[in-house]
Amino acid sequence: MSKININEKFSLFTKEWTPKIIAESNGQLVKIAKGSGELVWHHHENEDELFIVFKGVLTLQLRDKNIVLNAGEMYVVPKGVEHCPLAEPDTHFMMIEPANTAHTGILESEVTISADKQEWI
Amino acid sequence: MSKININEKFSLFTKEWTPKIIAESNGQLVKIAKGSGELVWHHHENEDELFIVFKGVLTLQLRDKNIVLNAGEMYVVPKGVEHCPLAEPDTHFMMIEPANTAHTGILESEVTISADKQEWI
Repeated sequence: MSKININEKFSLFTKEWTPKIIAESNGQLVKIAKGSGELVWHHHENEDELFIVFKGVLTLQLRDKNIVLNAGEMYVVPKGVEHCPLAEPDTHFMMIEPANTAHTGILESEVTISADKQEWI
Repeated sequence: MSKININEKFSLFTKEWTPKIIAESNGQLVKIAKGSGELVWHHHENEDELFIVFKGVLTLQLRDKNIVLNAGEMYVVPKGVEHCPLAEPDTHFMMIEPANTAHTGILESEVTISADKQEWI
């Protein structure tokens, strides 16, 4: 593999809430996504989900609190914990999670991108 | 857990080539480290090692090429691949790897920090 320039990868797509895979390591995928507004409430039964924000503000709404992430900040949503991402316009973030993690958990909504449709860039 | 500000975590230590753990996710640890100069040649038999550079320049010397990572760039050293990190002064980087990954592989050198001595910050 070649080295990966993270900002260059962000420049390759515009569609929001559509995770793109940029690397694999130990069975986990490194994905980047853009967002604005709210996704949907969901949880992942067996997978922790690591978020790192590169631009903008990503609020991880949990049932009991909000985690407000600015650029350079990160958080791990533990498995089983319901969350609903809420992003300011043009927010860029990274997620690291096992390869089999479903985009919006067991919830299938119109915004769901199934794991087999998430593409490498 | 609370959110993690990555630069704030870097401000908490100065010792080089001494990974500090800042998060755990799916059995993998997120570590940050500072470096300058060369570590040692080593490999990890069973673990891929993900590097993301936040400041400075980290060169991952491999036996057949050099991967030169600037801030905002990343690379995955696959399991079994020999590597020797070489950093410009005051380089800051993140590593993500399974919790049981040995710092310098099977090599025990004077710079080795055993996994049970790597501390959380």
